[in-house]
Amino acid sequence: MAGSSFGNKITITTWGESHGAALGVVIDGFPAGLSLCEEDIQIYLDRRKPGQSKYTTQRAEGDKVEILSGVFEGHTTGTPISLMVRNNDQHSKDYGNIANTFRPGHADFGFYEKFGRRDYRGGGRSSGRETIGRVAAGAICAKLLRELGIEVFAYTKSIGDVSISEFELGERDLNSVAMPDAFAAKAAEEYLDACIMNQDSAGGVVECVVTGVPAGIGDPVFDKLDAKLAQALVSIGAVKGVEIGDGFAAAKSTGKLNNDEFEIFDDKIIKSTNHSGGILGGISDGDDIIVRAAIKPTPSISQMQHTVNEKGEEVDIEIHGRHDPVIVPRAVVVIEAMCAITICDAMLSHMTDRVEYIKEFYKN
Amino acid sequence: MAGSSFGNKITITTWGESHGAALGVVIDGFPAGLSLCEEDIQIYLDRRKPGQSKYTTQRAEGDKVEILSGVFEGHTTGTPISLMVRNNDQHSKDYGNIANTFRPGHADFGFYEKFGRRDYRGGGRSSGRETIGRVAAGAICAKLLRELGIEVFAYTKSIGDVSISEFELGERDLNSVAMPDAFAAKAAEEYLDACIMNQDSAGGVVECVVTGVPAGIGDPVFDKLDAKLAQALVSIGAVKGVEIGDGFAAAKSTGKLNNDEFEIFDDKIIKSTNHSGGILGGISDGDDIIVRAAIKPTPSISQMQHTVNEKGEEVDIEIHGRHDPVIVPRAVVVIEAMCAITICDAMLSHMTDRVEYIKEFYKN
Amino acid sequence: MAGSSFGNKITITTWGESHGAALGVVIDGFPAGLSLCEEDIQIYLDRRKPGQSKYTTQRAEGDKVEILSGVFEGHTTGTPISLMVRNNDQHSKDYGNIANTFRPGHADFGFYEKFGRRDYRGGGRSSGRETIGRVAAGAICAKLLRELGIEVFAYTKSIGDVSISEFELGERDLNSVAMPDAFAAKAAEEYLDACIMNQDSAGGVVECVVTGVPAGIGDPVFDKLDAKLAQALVSIGAVKGVEIGDGFAAAKSTGKLNNDEFEIFDDKIIKSTNHSGGILGGISDGDDIIVRAAIKPTPSISQMQHTVNEKGEEVDIEIHGRHDPVIVPRAVVVIEAMCAITICDAMLSHMTDRVEYIKEFYKN
Amino acid sequence: MAGSSFGNKITITTWGESHGAALGVVIDGFPAGLSLCEEDIQIYLDRRKPGQSKYTTQRAEGDKVEILSGVFEGHTTGTPISLMVRNNDQHSKDYGNIANTFRPGHADFGFYEKFGRRDYRGGGRSSGRETIGRVAAGAICAKLLRELGIEVFAYTKSIGDVSISEFELGERDLNSVAMPDAFAAKAAEEYLDACIMNQDSAGGVVECVVTGVPAGIGDPVFDKLDAKLAQALVSIGAVKGVEIGDGFAAAKSTGKLNNDEFEIFDDKIIKSTNHSGGILGGISDGDDIIVRAAIKPTPSISQMQHTVNEKGEEVDIEIHGRHDPVIVPRAVVVIEAMCAITICDAMLSHMTDRVEYIKEFYKN
Repeated sequence: MAGSSFGNKITITTWGESHGAALGVVIDGFPAGLSLCEEDIQIYLDRRKPGQSKYTTQRAEGDKVEILSGVFEGHTTGTPISLMVRNNDQHSKDYGNIANTFRPGHADFGFYEKFGRRDYRGGGRSSGRETIGRVAAGAICAKLLRELGIEVFAYTKSIGDVSISEFELGERDLNSVAMPDAFAAKAAEEYLDACIMNQDSAGGVVECVVTGVPAGIGDPVFDKLDAKLAQALVSIGAVKGVEIGDGFAAAKSTGKLNNDEFEIFDDKIIKSTNHSGGILGGISDGDDIIVRAAIKPTPSISQMQHTVNEKGEEVDIEIHGRHDPVIVPRAVVVIEAMCAITICDAMLSHMTDRVEYIKEFYKN
Repeated sequence: MAGSSFGNKITITTWGESHGAALGVVIDGFPAGLSLCEEDIQIYLDRRKPGQSKYTTQRAEGDKVEILSGVFEGHTTGTPISLMVRNNDQHSKDYGNIANTFRPGHADFGFYEKFGRRDYRGGGRSSGRETIGRVAAGAICAKLLRELGIEVFAYTKSIGDVSISEFELGERDLNSVAMPDAFAAKAAEEYLDACIMNQDSAGGVVECVVTGVPAGIGDPVFDKLDAKLAQALVSIGAVKGVEIGDGFAAAKSTGKLNNDEFEIFDDKIIKSTNHSGGILGGISDGDDIIVRAAIKPTPSISQMQHTVNEKGEEVDIEIHGRHDPVIVPRAVVVIEAMCAITICDAMLSHMTDRVEYIKEFYKN
Repeated sequence: MAGSSFGNKITITTWGESHGAALGVVIDGFPAGLSLCEEDIQIYLDRRKPGQSKYTTQRAEGDKVEILSGVFEGHTTGTPISLMVRNNDQHSKDYGNIANTFRPGHADFGFYEKFGRRDYRGGGRSSGRETIGRVAAGAICAKLLRELGIEVFAYTKSIGDVSISEFELGERDLNSVAMPDAFAAKAAEEYLDACIMNQDSAGGVVECVVTGVPAGIGDPVFDKLDAKLAQALVSIGAVKGVEIGDGFAAAKSTGKLNNDEFEIFDDKIIKSTNHSGGILGGISDGDDIIVRAAIKPTPSISQMQHTVNEKGEEVDIEIHGRHDPVIVPRAVVVIEAMCAITICDAMLSHMTDRVEYIKEFYKN
Repeated sequence: MAGSSFGNKITITTWGESHGAALGVVIDGFPAGLSLCEEDIQIYLDRRKPGQSKYTTQRAEGDKVEILSGVFEGHTTGTPISLMVRNNDQHSKDYGNIANTFRPGHADFGFYEKFGRRDYRGGGRSSGRETIGRVAAGAICAKLLRELGIEVFAYTKSIGDVSISEFELGERDLNSVAMPDAFAAKAAEEYLDACIMNQDSAGGVVECVVTGVPAGIGDPVFDKLDAKLAQALVSIGAVKGVEIGDGFAAAKSTGKLNNDEFEIFDDKIIKSTNHSGGILGGISDGDDIIVRAAIKPTPSISQMQHTVNEKGEEVDIEIHGRHDPVIVPRAVVVIEAMCAITICDAMLSHMTDRVEYIKEFYKN
């Protein structure tokens, strides 16, 4: 399978470039019978839409989704769900030297070496707009997960050096940086204002918590639940690191401190602590699943940078145009989407793990 | 594809349990014509073999590999290469309360919830012995990569709080903790001695450097080179985090500082710095590829722990037997193997990226 | 991978229903650098377009294709090519009893049992319109194959009892039944006229010949070139059988008669005969590849039929509307498309079969 | 995924060559909890074992299977099941001119062109011995299917011109040609005796009937149940054609005659006839699934044949050694195995087709 698809039972395939006619996704293998309309998806797309604060690109896109197939009489039919968003605000400008210059920190050089050519308009396929398909697919998977009692909730944990120190769930959607901490959000905004002033950009960390996943989900070897989550998150443009549970801190801990003891609570087996982040040996342990992604600073900055062009000449460039000084807040919904897709796929996969399940299913 | 396989062009499938008859791997899609004998593989397996220092389990396994198919007259034939290692030292002991108790920090509970049963002997499929198949396959991929001028080299970067501060390539194989820094190695050994004394265990960080990968390798979306490396590394038992290049530190940097500028050196496009860790937008940028994996402390510790058994009773257990107080040094070759497999697969995939390549290949 | 995708290196994913908003295909993994415009694809779509003779449905569809992604400055870029055809002539009629009745010979009952619901409008996903995506993808693969000297040519071999007895390549596109034999075509048209008069329908056999495929293409076991061609052809709606080379006749032959001897001609190894149909042991043998597909009579017939509805009641139905009395002529281009996709995929796959190829590719 | 694997939920990967150390299969994704021992598998392997009549090769192989993993305390554990059969009777002879000569009707030439080398001993990977892994995996899938009320039964329908005219289920295992018709079996044996006398070989047709598959199994597009069955069957060495239900005869029928009407019987929806062979639109319709495979005459014949060697010289060869004058009777169990694997996989896949199934499964 070529590289624009993800998932085994539910396979999503994204397509589209930043300045092409449209972007979209095909979701194959999604079960029949989920109530679904465009509004269910639009809510998610609106969360990643540009132009919502001064910290995001001012590109004006409605990002209206159209369901092209797979839904009939308000429900999914089991056939591929094709979703499309038209590009509207493709500035038909002269790309000038950007067209044949390799921007530092971008995928330009790699694309050129790989394919021998590239769609240089707005980053082409490597643009953040590629995530539209992911978010649209994630909205649908998240809806199914909710029917199973599973919630996926991501938020900005830090921007630059500013980290949250408290967690108010409702606060996340009230500030421009998606932090569940009003005080930290204000500090982060000040940090970003300084970045903008310096013609510079910032990175940060997004954390995602998934509640309600039962124990026993995930495959034990290469498709460990955390291995697939790691692929899912690192496959997002600017992600340079990922952690599950205590992550890198676990490397400094000891077995005694890091092991989560099991106990009985309310007739159920639970863990006393959650250093594992809800996954042990690649399989969910019934606790909250906790993952984090490190996002690098936006590579497009307006100050002068030194680089090389396609002719092999050294040049200096200034990148003008509409850029996010930080993409972390907009990445929050993308990370939610990827977690939802990954977990939804693993939930379906588990249903055939035991002969007793199969016999029960086919018993009549 | 079920979860014991990895790779697209070259697909490896591992099988086997800690105390079953044998463990092994089938490598399908490997090209014909590589000179290969058992010794090529044994060198790698010997690096992960138990019993080589006081910091590793004293289980006595020769771990001798047998090539069962896919090699004829000293060369690979293009057909599946089947490799097997017999288990010899399966203590046929009474597993006692371990047999039906969920050990903290282990996959026991997840396996039981997933499959309704589990091979409790030595962790069964979730044992570190599963990595035998990975290392054997990695040895073969690494051999092919060397013929293309690519070297994969991993080492222990830290154990507990002890980090390396210098890099002497030859030193790695001279100490028991696989650190390329003799002084740090000594400090790490002291730290581990204290762990053993406390009936506790340690974790650490392994770093892997891949040199010689040309620019243009990797797929732009879900199969980004770093996304597949992340899956590859997190799929190893105890890994709880992964970083590419500057990793989590990048999240605190700024665009100006984090972007690697391009320049011309010796008629070749190179980067002035390597914050990216050799991968931009999921595609290699021609620089060294640098990844790190955080490994949690070994969960098997001999001090008393509280937990629950299969009947749902709370119990206290002491885990006796042969355990590694740290698995980091033995994980080094596993991480090399997974990186070699991932990169080898991506190198083959690139060969069909352009129509001009295809026409050149079939020109006669 | 869910079931709407086909191919390994080049993966196509089709989507869309007969009376939904649109139908389309995403082609992932297609190499960069092929000159491509909508007209290249339209030529193929026009060959399967309805309403071109009295033997095909009178539904009025322009079937105009739109390239939504993956093409820039007139060439493929290596990123997913998304193609879409809008549905225009969706009769917004009352489907009456058809809506909840299982039509004999159709997929209605299976869909309902599988998914618990179905898009009953025009057969939904099981409509022949699903092949639009296949034909569009096939047009692109066929264009690439032509650049490698490979031609894919299919034609009607028989309709009902009327078989061709000569082969005039140019004749195929001059008659309404796609037969390369004017005399047989006339007889077939008379047979079809009788079918229409009887409110009945006809089936037939399509043969496809692929010239120019070098020896050595295809994988030896489950992905044998003929096994993938068989899947490709039987995956087309009404196909009930497939043959390679002598096919079922080979079962009655003997080894002496059926073996093709090798000989040297013009310094090249060729076969004296071609009973094998160009494939031995799943690998191309350098000769013309010859496959045939048996297509059942169109199940939609206007005479009264007995059946059952969703309530489990026996009912009689008459299927009115726009139906093809035979789909064989329109299936010709679909079969060409599926053969082109399958062979194109296998051609790319072969490029990594030998270490020497890989070393040659990366030699600089 | 490289070409030695088959199946989505349950993925089998075969490995091994005719004269290598061993042959085997890894079955990944098989559910936990099936009672399984080596004898369950051996029964199937014994049916394909050589040397059981004068019509099969006299190679002396016990073909004893060893379960290496995935089974614990008499039940499958959900982890990969690795099965191995050692080769014993590898005549360590001088292969003489066969070693570098392309035998007519064999895969030799294709392998050589593909891989640039080949294991010429007994056909290497293209030997019929590759089917050992298929049969072993098929035995396990068939056992699971029986627990679901599904039986897979194949038999020889014809050899050369001799076809069965009656069907006595118990008779199949009483004659040397696996025909469920004692009279036809005798005629077939006479036909084969004549073939042997003429130093020639014979082909035939195998039919497989699967009873008990509920309606609703199979995927609607590329992974249609019949498309996967077609791939499964054509992937067996000598198969040159495949039919579902009426197959090629359907191409000559009419819609009225070929459509199976639905009716109610015993409160269940059934079909009055079964021209479809139990599959409509790629989905099972609840009726018996009926497929047929055309098997070509064994290409190894002892009379002189003309061919070419690796140096490009024309030569005459006589193929001595142990060959089956007909492989049809031994192919019967291979075809059963491939049908069992395909249907088992599709049965598991169906369990996630509806949101209601998923909610029911996770309701607690």
